[in-house]
Amino acid sequence: MNPPCPAIILVHPQMGENIGAAARAMLNFGLEDLRLVNPRDGWPNKAATDMSSGALEKMPPVQVFDTLQEALADLHYVLATTARPRDMVKEVFTPAEAGKETQNAQRAGLKTGLVFGAERAGLSNDDIALCNAMINIPTNPDFSSLNLGQSVLLVASTLFFTQNNREEGRTLKQGESFPVTHDKLEEFLVRMENELQEGGFFRSKELKPTMIRNIRNIFTRTNLTDQEVRTLHGVLTSLTRQKKPSE
Amino acid sequence: MNPPCPAIILVHPQMGENIGAAARAMLNFGLEDLRLVNPRDGWPNKAATDMSSGALEKMPPVQVFDTLQEALADLHYVLATTARPRDMVKEVFTPAEAGKETQNAQRAGLKTGLVFGAERAGLSNDDIALCNAMINIPTNPDFSSLNLGQSVLLVASTLFFTQNNREEGRTLKQGESFPVTHDKLEEFLVRMENELQEGGFFRSKELKPTMIRNIRNIFTRTNLTDQEVRTLHGVLTSLTRQKKPSE
Repeated sequence: MNPPCPAIILVHPQMGENIGAAARAMLNFGLEDLRLVNPRDGWPNKAATDMSSGALEKMPPVQVFDTLQEALADLHYVLATTARPRDMVKEVFTPAEAGKETQNAQRAGLKTGLVFGAERAGLSNDDIALCNAMINIPTNPDFSSLNLGQSVLLVASTLFFTQNNREEGRTLKQGESFPVTHDKLEEFLVRMENELQEGGFFRSKELKPTMIRNIRNIFTRTNLTDQEVRTLHGVLTSLTRQKKPSE
Repeated sequence: MNPPCPAIILVHPQMGENIGAAARAMLNFGLEDLRLVNPRDGWPNKAATDMSSGALEKMPPVQVFDTLQEALADLHYVLATTARPRDMVKEVFTPAEAGKETQNAQRAGLKTGLVFGAERAGLSNDDIALCNAMINIPTNPDFSSLNLGQSVLLVASTLFFTQNNREEGRTLKQGESFPVTHDKLEEFLVRMENELQEGGFFRSKELKPTMIRNIRNIFTRTNLTDQEVRTLHGVLTSLTRQKKPSE
Protein backbone atom coordinates (compact mmCIF):
# COMPACT_ATOMS: atom_id res chain seq x y z
CA MET A 1 0.00 0.00 0.00
CA ASN A 2 1.35 3.36 -0.98
CA PRO A 3 0.43 6.43 1.02
CA PRO A 4 -1.75 8.95 -0.83
CA CYS A 5 -0.11 10.74 -3.74
CA PRO A 6 1.49 13.03 -4.54
CA ALA A 7 4.68 12.63 -2.53
CA ILE A 8 6.20 15.90 -1.30
CA ILE A 9 9.96 16.04 -1.77
CA LEU A 10 11.99 18.74 0.03
CA VAL A 11 15.47 19.20 -1.43
CA HIS A 12 18.16 20.09 1.11
CA PRO A 13 15.83 21.81 3.59
CA GLN A 14 17.59 23.96 6.21
CA MET A 15 15.31 24.63 9.18
CA GLY A 16 13.59 21.81 11.04
CA GLU A 17 10.71 24.23 11.68
CA ASN A 18 10.02 24.44 7.97
CA ILE A 19 10.02 20.68 7.58
CA GLY A 20 7.53 20.44 10.45
CA ALA A 21 5.34 23.16 8.96
CA ALA A 22 5.42 21.36 5.61
CA ALA A 23 4.36 18.08 7.26
CA ARG A 24 1.51 19.82 9.05
CA ALA A 25 0.37 21.51 5.84
CA MET A 26 0.49 18.16 4.03
CA LEU A 27 -1.61 16.27 6.53
CA ASN A 28 -4.15 19.11 6.66
CA PHE A 29 -4.81 18.32 3.03
CA GLY A 30 -4.50 14.57 3.14
CA LEU A 31 -0.92 14.08 1.90
CA GLU A 32 1.31 11.65 3.82
CA ASP A 33 4.35 10.76 1.75
CA LEU A 34 7.13 13.16 2.82
CA ARG A 35 10.63 12.67 1.45
CA LEU A 36 13.75 14.65 2.35
CA VAL A 37 16.86 14.97 0.23
CA ASN A 38 19.95 15.61 2.32
CA PRO A 39 18.39 17.72 5.12
CA ARG A 40 20.96 20.11 6.63
CA ASP A 41 20.43 19.06 10.26
CA GLY A 42 19.95 15.33 9.69
CA TRP A 43 16.89 13.30 10.60
CA PRO A 44 14.92 12.94 12.87
CA ASN A 45 14.80 16.57 13.94
CA LYS A 46 13.14 17.75 17.16
CA ALA A 47 12.29 21.22 15.81
CA ALA A 48 10.45 19.56 12.95
CA THR A 49 8.50 17.25 15.24
CA ASP A 50 7.53 20.14 17.52
CA MET A 51 6.39 22.30 14.64
CA SER A 52 4.32 19.59 12.99
CA SER A 53 1.57 19.63 15.66
CA GLY A 54 1.52 15.84 15.69
CA ALA A 55 1.44 15.43 11.90
CA LEU A 56 4.83 13.67 11.74
CA GLU A 57 3.66 11.10 14.29
CA LYS A 58 0.49 10.35 12.36
CA MET A 59 2.13 10.06 8.96
CA PRO A 60 4.13 7.07 7.72
CA PRO A 61 7.86 7.48 8.47
CA VAL A 62 9.62 10.19 6.50
CA GLN A 63 12.06 8.79 3.93
CA VAL A 64 15.51 10.37 3.66
CA PHE A 65 17.67 10.22 0.52
CA ASP A 66 21.09 11.44 -0.51
CA THR A 67 20.08 12.65 -3.94
CA LEU A 68 16.94 13.88 -5.69
CA GLN A 69 17.33 11.10 -8.25
CA GLU A 70 16.92 8.46 -5.54
CA ALA A 71 13.98 10.28 -4.00
CA LEU A 72 12.16 10.28 -7.33
CA ALA A 73 13.06 6.71 -8.26
CA ASP A 74 9.63 5.09 -7.89
CA LEU A 75 7.59 8.06 -9.13
CA HIS A 76 6.14 8.47 -12.63
CA TYR A 77 5.18 12.12 -12.85
CA VAL A 78 6.97 14.86 -10.93
CA LEU A 79 6.52 18.62 -10.83
CA ALA A 80 9.12 21.14 -9.63
CA THR A 81 7.91 24.17 -7.67
CA THR A 82 9.60 27.43 -8.57
CA ALA A 83 9.17 30.98 -7.30
CA ARG A 84 10.69 32.63 -10.33
CA PRO A 85 10.52 31.72 -14.02
CA ARG A 86 13.43 29.70 -15.34
CA ASP A 87 14.87 29.80 -18.75
CA MET A 88 14.00 26.23 -19.49
CA VAL A 89 11.92 24.48 -22.06
CA LYS A 90 9.39 22.96 -19.75
CA GLU A 91 5.71 23.41 -19.14
CA VAL A 92 4.77 25.76 -16.30
CA PHE A 93 1.49 25.15 -14.48
CA THR A 94 -0.46 27.25 -12.03
CA PRO A 95 -1.26 25.39 -8.79
CA ALA A 96 -4.80 24.68 -10.02
CA GLU A 97 -3.58 23.28 -13.32
CA ALA A 98 -1.04 21.20 -11.42
CA GLY A 99 -3.91 19.83 -9.36
CA LYS A 100 -5.67 18.65 -12.51
CA GLU A 101 -2.47 17.23 -14.01
CA THR A 102 -1.59 15.19 -10.94
CA GLN A 103 -5.19 14.04 -10.60
CA ASN A 104 -5.20 12.83 -14.19
CA ALA A 105 -1.88 11.09 -13.68
CA GLN A 106 -3.10 9.37 -10.54
CA ARG A 107 -6.27 8.21 -12.24
CA ALA A 108 -4.07 6.63 -14.87
CA GLY A 109 -2.32 4.72 -12.06
CA LEU A 110 0.83 6.85 -11.97
CA LYS A 111 2.72 7.78 -8.82
CA THR A 112 3.23 11.54 -8.61
CA GLY A 113 5.50 13.89 -6.69
CA LEU A 114 6.00 17.61 -6.03
CA VAL A 115 9.51 18.90 -5.46
CA PHE A 116 10.35 21.98 -3.35
CA GLY A 117 13.78 23.61 -3.09
CA ALA A 118 15.71 24.87 -0.07
CA GLU A 119 14.54 27.98 1.78
CA ARG A 120 16.59 30.64 0.02
CA ALA A 121 18.14 29.10 -3.02
CA GLY A 122 15.16 27.17 -4.35
CA LEU A 123 15.77 24.36 -6.80
CA SER A 124 18.81 24.31 -9.04
CA ASN A 125 18.35 24.05 -12.76
CA ASP A 126 19.73 20.53 -12.52
CA ASP A 127 17.03 19.61 -10.01
CA ILE A 128 14.36 21.03 -12.27
CA ALA A 129 15.72 19.14 -15.20
CA LEU A 130 14.86 15.91 -13.39
CA CYS A 131 11.18 16.86 -13.22
CA ASN A 132 8.45 16.54 -15.82
CA ALA A 133 7.15 20.09 -15.56
CA MET A 134 7.04 23.11 -13.24
CA ILE A 135 4.55 24.72 -10.91
CA ASN A 136 4.80 28.44 -10.46
CA ILE A 137 3.01 30.07 -7.53
CA PRO A 138 2.03 33.57 -8.69
CA THR A 139 2.40 36.27 -6.01
CA ASN A 140 2.39 40.05 -5.74
CA PRO A 141 5.50 41.12 -7.68
CA ASP A 142 6.11 43.95 -5.17
CA PHE A 143 6.02 41.74 -2.10
CA SER A 144 6.77 38.07 -2.21
CA SER A 145 7.74 36.42 1.05
CA LEU A 146 6.41 32.86 0.97
CA ASN A 147 8.41 30.44 3.08
CA LEU A 148 8.78 26.71 2.49
CA GLY A 149 5.91 25.70 4.78
CA GLN A 150 3.59 28.22 3.14
CA SER A 151 4.53 27.09 -0.35
CA VAL A 152 3.74 23.48 0.55
CA LEU A 153 0.49 24.65 2.16
CA LEU A 154 -0.60 26.51 -0.96
CA VAL A 155 0.18 23.72 -3.36
CA ALA A 156 -1.24 20.96 -1.13
CA SER A 157 -4.47 22.88 -0.51
CA THR A 158 -4.94 23.75 -4.17
CA LEU A 159 -4.54 20.09 -5.08
CA PHE A 160 -7.00 19.13 -2.38
CA PHE A 161 -9.55 21.71 -3.50
CA THR A 162 -9.13 20.70 -7.14
CA GLN A 163 -9.46 17.04 -6.42
CA ASN A 164 -12.45 17.48 -4.14
CA ASN A 165 -14.21 19.65 -6.64
CA ARG A 166 -17.24 17.65 -7.68
CA GLU A 167 -18.14 20.14 -10.39
CA GLU A 168 -19.41 23.37 -8.91
CA GLY A 169 -20.24 23.09 -5.27
CA ARG A 170 -22.14 26.21 -4.29
CA THR A 171 -24.59 25.07 -1.67
CA LEU A 172 -27.15 26.76 0.46
CA LYS A 173 -26.71 25.53 3.98
CA GLN A 174 -30.22 25.26 5.30
CA GLY A 175 -30.08 23.17 8.46
CA GLU A 176 -33.10 20.99 9.05
CA SER A 177 -35.38 23.17 7.04
CA PHE A 178 -36.43 22.53 3.47
CA PRO A 179 -36.89 25.15 0.77
CA VAL A 180 -40.42 26.48 0.71
CA THR A 181 -42.77 25.47 -2.07
CA HIS A 182 -44.00 28.20 -4.32
CA ASP A 183 -47.57 27.97 -3.18
CA LYS A 184 -46.61 28.72 0.42
CA LEU A 185 -44.37 31.57 -0.62
CA GLU A 186 -47.21 32.97 -2.73
CA GLU A 187 -49.58 32.73 0.24
CA PHE A 188 -47.18 34.80 2.33
CA LEU A 189 -46.62 37.39 -0.40
CA VAL A 190 -50.33 37.85 -1.02
CA ARG A 191 -50.96 38.22 2.68
CA MET A 192 -48.25 40.86 2.94
CA GLU A 193 -49.54 42.71 -0.09
CA ASN A 194 -53.03 42.84 1.44
CA GLU A 195 -51.63 44.22 4.67
CA LEU A 196 -49.69 46.83 2.74
CA GLN A 197 -52.80 47.78 0.79
CA GLU A 198 -54.64 48.32 4.07
CA GLY A 199 -51.74 50.35 5.40
CA GLY A 200 -51.83 52.70 2.42
CA PHE A 201 -48.44 51.59 1.16
CA PHE A 202 -49.27 51.74 -2.54
CA ARG A 203 -49.38 55.42 -3.18
CA SER A 204 -51.03 55.17 -6.58
CA LYS A 205 -52.72 52.58 -8.75
CA GLU A 206 -50.11 53.14 -11.44
CA LEU A 207 -47.18 52.46 -9.14
CA LYS A 208 -48.69 49.46 -7.41
CA PRO A 209 -47.68 46.72 -9.91
CA THR A 210 -44.04 47.88 -9.92
CA MET A 211 -43.92 48.17 -6.16
CA ILE A 212 -45.32 44.68 -5.78
CA ARG A 213 -42.77 43.33 -8.23
CA ASN A 214 -39.93 44.97 -6.35
CA ILE A 215 -41.04 43.47 -3.06
CA ARG A 216 -41.55 40.06 -4.59
CA ASN A 217 -38.03 40.13 -6.00
CA ILE A 218 -36.61 40.65 -2.53
CA PHE A 219 -38.28 37.52 -1.23
CA THR A 220 -38.17 35.22 -4.25
CA ARG A 221 -34.47 35.44 -4.95
CA THR A 222 -33.54 34.48 -1.38
CA ASN A 223 -34.53 30.80 -1.63
CA LEU A 224 -36.46 30.97 1.61
CA THR A 225 -37.01 27.84 3.63
CA ASP A 226 -40.29 26.61 4.98
CA GLN A 227 -39.32 27.64 8.48
CA GLU A 228 -38.31 31.11 7.34
CA VAL A 229 -41.66 31.70 5.70
CA ARG A 230 -43.34 30.70 8.97
CA THR A 231 -41.06 33.20 10.72
CA LEU A 232 -42.03 35.92 8.25
CA HIS A 233 -45.71 35.21 8.88
CA GLY A 234 -44.99 35.74 12.57
CA VAL A 235 -43.19 38.98 11.77
CA LEU A 236 -46.21 40.22 9.80
CA THR A 237 -48.62 39.31 12.58
CA SER A 238 -46.48 41.02 15.15
CA LEU A 239 -45.96 44.20 13.14
CA THR A 240 -49.60 44.64 12.21
CA ARG A 241 -51.01 44.02 15.68
CA GLN A 242 -48.69 46.39 17.49
CA LYS A 243 -49.86 49.80 18.61
CA LYS A 244 -53.41 48.67 17.86
CA PRO A 245 -54.86 48.83 21.37
CA SER A 246 -52.69 51.53 22.88
CA GLU A 247 -53.05 54.22 20.24
CA MET B 1 -8.53 55.88 -3.63
CA ASN B 2 -9.51 52.75 -1.85
CA PRO B 3 -6.94 50.04 -1.28
CA PRO B 4 -7.52 46.87 -3.28
CA CYS B 5 -10.52 44.82 -2.25
CA PRO B 6 -11.47 42.65 -0.52
CA ALA B 7 -10.83 44.00 2.95
CA ILE B 8 -9.70 41.38 5.46
CA ILE B 9 -11.46 41.74 8.81
CA LEU B 10 -10.10 39.87 11.84
CA VAL B 11 -12.59 39.65 14.69
CA HIS B 12 -11.04 39.78 18.17
CA PRO B 13 -7.66 38.33 17.17
CA GLN B 14 -5.57 37.14 20.09
CA MET B 15 -1.90 36.79 19.09
CA GLY B 16 -0.03 39.65 17.44
CA GLU B 17 1.99 37.02 15.55
CA ASN B 18 -1.15 35.86 13.79
CA ILE B 19 -2.13 39.40 12.81
CA GLY B 20 1.37 39.88 11.37
CA ALA B 21 1.20 36.58 9.51
CA ALA B 22 -2.20 37.56 8.12
CA ALA B 23 -0.82 40.92 6.91
CA ARG B 24 2.11 39.20 5.26
CA ALA B 25 -0.17 36.67 3.59
CA MET B 26 -2.41 39.50 2.37
CA LEU B 27 0.36 41.53 0.80
CA ASN B 28 1.84 38.44 -0.84
CA PHE B 29 -1.40 38.28 -2.77
CA GLY B 30 -1.99 41.97 -3.29
CA LEU B 31 -4.50 42.73 -0.50
CA GLU B 32 -3.93 45.86 1.60
CA ASP B 33 -7.08 46.72 3.55
CA LEU B 34 -6.69 45.10 6.98
CA ARG B 35 -9.29 45.81 9.68
CA LEU B 36 -9.24 44.59 13.27
CA VAL B 37 -12.24 44.31 15.54
CA ASN B 38 -11.29 44.62 19.18
CA PRO B 39 -7.81 43.00 19.08
CA ARG B 40 -6.97 41.43 22.44
CA ASP B 41 -3.61 43.17 22.90
CA GLY B 42 -4.55 46.54 21.42
CA TRP B 43 -2.94 48.20 18.43
CA PRO B 44 -0.24 48.78 17.24
CA ASN B 45 1.38 45.53 18.30
CA LYS B 46 5.10 44.84 18.07
CA ALA B 47 4.73 41.09 17.64
CA ALA B 48 2.48 41.73 14.65
CA THR B 49 4.93 44.18 13.06
CA ASP B 50 7.84 41.77 13.54
CA MET B 51 5.93 38.84 12.08
CA SER B 52 4.69 40.75 9.05
CA SER B 53 8.15 40.86 7.39
CA GLY B 54 7.60 44.50 6.48
CA ALA B 55 4.08 44.03 5.11
CA LEU B 56 2.44 46.23 7.78
CA GLU B 57 4.80 49.08 6.95
CA LYS B 58 4.02 48.87 3.25
CA MET B 59 0.26 48.64 3.63
CA PRO B 60 -2.07 51.56 4.39
CA PRO B 61 -2.65 51.90 8.16
CA VAL B 62 -4.67 49.13 9.77
CA GLN B 63 -8.12 50.29 10.90
CA VAL B 64 -9.33 49.24 14.35
CA PHE B 65 -13.02 49.03 15.33
CA ASP B 66 -14.99 48.18 18.44
CA THR B 67 -17.61 46.10 16.69
CA LEU B 68 -17.94 44.04 13.54
CA GLN B 69 -20.88 46.21 12.47
CA GLU B 70 -18.63 49.27 12.38
CA ALA B 71 -15.90 47.41 10.52
CA LEU B 72 -18.36 46.38 7.79
CA ALA B 73 -20.17 49.72 7.55
CA ASP B 74 -18.87 50.83 4.14
CA LEU B 75 -18.77 47.37 2.52
CA HIS B 76 -21.40 45.92 0.19
CA TYR B 77 -20.63 42.22 0.02
CA VAL B 78 -19.07 40.33 2.90
CA LEU B 79 -18.19 36.67 3.37
CA ALA B 80 -17.61 34.92 6.71
CA THR B 81 -14.90 32.26 6.91
CA THR B 82 -15.84 29.20 8.95
CA ALA B 83 -13.95 26.02 9.76
CA ARG B 84 -17.03 24.00 10.62
CA PRO B 85 -20.49 23.98 9.13
CA ARG B 86 -23.09 26.08 10.93
CA ASP B 87 -26.75 25.44 11.20
CA MET B 88 -27.71 28.59 9.36
CA VAL B 89 -29.56 29.39 6.20
CA LYS B 90 -26.76 30.94 4.19
CA GLU B 91 -24.80 30.07 1.07
CA VAL B 92 -21.49 28.28 1.60
CA PHE B 93 -18.71 28.76 -0.94
CA THR B 94 -15.43 26.98 -1.47
CA PRO B 95 -12.46 29.37 -1.59
CA ALA B 96 -12.42 29.21 -5.41
CA GLU B 97 -16.12 30.01 -5.66
CA ALA B 98 -15.63 32.84 -3.18
CA GLY B 99 -12.91 34.14 -5.48
CA LYS B 100 -15.35 34.28 -8.37
CA GLU B 101 -18.10 35.84 -6.27
CA THR B 102 -15.89 38.62 -4.92
CA GLN B 103 -14.43 39.20 -8.38
CA ASN B 104 -17.90 39.62 -9.84
CA ALA B 105 -18.91 41.92 -7.01
CA GLN B 106 -15.81 44.05 -7.49
CA ARG B 107 -16.36 44.31 -11.23
CA ALA B 108 -19.81 45.65 -10.45
CA GLY B 109 -18.15 48.34 -8.33
CA LEU B 110 -18.93 46.84 -4.93
CA LYS B 111 -16.65 46.94 -1.90
CA THR B 112 -16.08 43.46 -0.54
CA GLY B 113 -14.75 41.97 2.68
CA LEU B 114 -13.72 38.63 4.17
CA VAL B 115 -14.24 38.08 7.89
CA PHE B 116 -12.11 35.74 10.01
CA GLY B 117 -12.81 34.77 13.62
CA ALA B 118 -10.50 34.54 16.59
CA GLU B 119 -7.89 31.79 16.79
CA ARG B 120 -9.79 29.13 18.72
CA ALA B 121 -13.38 30.18 18.88
CA GLY B 122 -13.88 31.32 15.27
CA LEU B 123 -16.82 33.54 14.44
CA SER B 124 -19.97 33.58 16.54
CA ASN B 125 -23.28 32.88 14.90
CA ASP B 126 -24.16 36.54 15.46
CA ASP B 127 -21.05 37.58 13.53
CA ILE B 128 -21.97 35.28 10.67
CA ALA B 129 -25.51 36.61 10.58
CA LEU B 130 -24.04 40.01 9.63
CA CYS B 131 -22.40 38.57 6.51
CA ASN B 132 -23.86 37.83 3.10
CA ALA B 133 -22.55 34.27 2.78
CA MET B 134 -19.91 31.87 4.11
CA ILE B 135 -16.60 30.46 2.92
CA ASN B 136 -15.66 27.03 4.14
CA ILE B 137 -12.07 25.82 3.77
CA PRO B 138 -12.24 22.07 3.30
CA THR B 139 -9.48 20.12 5.07
CA ASN B 140 -8.60 16.55 5.98
CA PRO B 141 -11.31 15.56 8.49
CA ASP B 142 -8.77 13.50 10.47
CA PHE B 143 -6.26 16.31 10.87
CA SER B 144 -7.23 19.93 10.69
CA SER B 145 -4.82 22.41 12.23
CA LEU B 146 -4.99 25.59 10.18
CA ASN B 147 -4.14 28.72 12.13
CA LEU B 148 -5.40 32.23 11.45
CA GLY B 149 -2.42 33.26 9.31
CA GLN B 150 -2.71 30.10 7.22
CA SER B 151 -6.43 30.55 6.73
CA VAL B 152 -5.90 34.10 5.47
CA LEU B 153 -3.08 32.83 3.25
CA LEU B 154 -5.26 30.16 1.68
CA VAL B 155 -8.20 32.41 1.01
CA ALA B 156 -6.07 35.35 -0.22
CA SER B 157 -4.05 33.14 -2.55
CA THR B 158 -7.11 31.39 -3.94
CA LEU B 159 -8.67 34.78 -4.69
CA PHE B 160 -5.47 35.90 -6.34
CA PHE B 161 -5.24 32.76 -8.46
CA THR B 162 -8.92 32.97 -9.37
CA GLN B 163 -8.80 36.64 -10.26
CA ASN B 164 -5.75 36.22 -12.43
CA ASN B 165 -7.64 33.72 -14.41
CA ARG B 166 -10.37 35.50 -16.31
CA GLU B 167 -13.51 33.51 -16.25
CA GLU B 168 -17.08 34.63 -16.37
CA GLY B 169 -19.25 33.97 -13.40
CA ARG B 170 -22.74 34.58 -12.20
CA THR B 171 -23.84 38.14 -11.65
CA LEU B 172 -26.77 39.66 -9.91
CA LYS B 173 -28.66 41.86 -12.33
CA GLN B 174 -29.56 44.86 -10.27
CA GLY B 175 -30.86 47.51 -12.65
CA GLU B 176 -30.00 51.06 -11.70
CA SER B 177 -29.79 50.39 -8.02
CA PHE B 178 -26.60 49.75 -6.11
CA PRO B 179 -26.22 47.16 -3.36
CA VAL B 180 -26.77 48.57 0.09
CA THR B 181 -23.84 49.19 2.40
CA HIS B 182 -23.82 47.26 5.65
CA ASP B 183 -24.46 50.29 7.84
CA LYS B 184 -27.76 51.02 6.10
CA LEU B 185 -28.80 47.40 6.21
CA GLU B 186 -27.97 47.32 9.92
CA GLU B 187 -30.10 50.42 10.49
CA PHE B 188 -33.07 48.72 8.88
CA LEU B 189 -32.57 45.47 10.81
CA VAL B 190 -32.31 47.26 14.14
CA ARG B 191 -35.43 49.26 13.37
CA MET B 192 -37.34 46.11 12.50
CA GLU B 193 -36.11 44.33 15.61
CA ASN B 194 -37.31 47.22 17.76
CA GLU B 195 -40.73 47.13 16.11
CA LEU B 196 -40.88 43.38 16.67
CA GLN B 197 -39.91 43.83 20.30
CA GLU B 198 -42.77 46.31 20.75
CA GLY B 199 -45.14 43.93 19.00
CA GLY B 200 -44.30 41.11 21.42
CA PHE B 201 -42.73 38.98 18.69
CA PHE B 202 -39.93 37.58 20.86
CA ARG B 203 -41.79 35.15 23.02
CA SER B 204 -38.98 34.65 25.52
CA LYS B 205 -35.61 36.18 26.39
CA GLU B 206 -33.95 32.83 25.68
CA LEU B 207 -35.35 32.54 22.18
CA LYS B 208 -34.76 36.15 21.19
CA PRO B 209 -31.11 35.88 20.01
CA THR B 210 -31.90 32.88 17.79
CA MET B 211 -35.00 34.51 16.38
CA ILE B 212 -33.06 37.67 15.57
CA ARG B 213 -30.33 35.63 13.91
CA ASN B 214 -32.85 33.76 11.77
CA ILE B 215 -34.45 36.99 10.59
CA ARG B 216 -31.07 38.60 9.90
CA ASN B 217 -30.04 35.64 7.79
CA ILE B 218 -33.09 36.11 5.59
CA PHE B 219 -32.13 39.69 4.81
CA THR B 220 -28.33 39.52 4.76
CA ARG B 221 -28.05 36.69 2.27
CA THR B 222 -30.23 38.45 -0.32
CA ASN B 223 -27.71 41.13 -1.30
CA LEU B 224 -30.34 43.84 -1.04
CA THR B 225 -29.97 47.04 -3.02
CA ASP B 226 -30.17 50.52 -1.62
CA GLN B 227 -33.58 51.00 -3.19
CA GLU B 228 -34.87 47.73 -1.75
CA VAL B 229 -33.88 48.73 1.76
CA ARG B 230 -35.74 52.01 1.28
CA THR B 231 -38.72 49.96 0.11
CA LEU B 232 -38.49 47.74 3.18
CA HIS B 233 -38.43 50.82 5.42
CA GLY B 234 -41.64 51.88 3.70
CA VAL B 235 -43.10 48.42 4.27
CA LEU B 236 -42.29 48.63 7.96
CA THR B 237 -43.80 52.08 8.29
CA SER B 238 -46.92 50.98 6.50
CA LEU B 239 -47.38 47.79 8.47
CA THR B 240 -46.89 49.38 11.86
CA ARG B 241 -49.16 52.35 11.30
CA GLN B 242 -52.10 50.47 9.86
CA LYS B 243 -55.33 49.96 11.75
CA LYS B 244 -54.24 52.71 14.10
CA PRO B 245 -57.02 55.19 13.47
CA SER B 246 -59.83 52.89 12.41
CA GLU B 247 -59.77 50.47 15.33
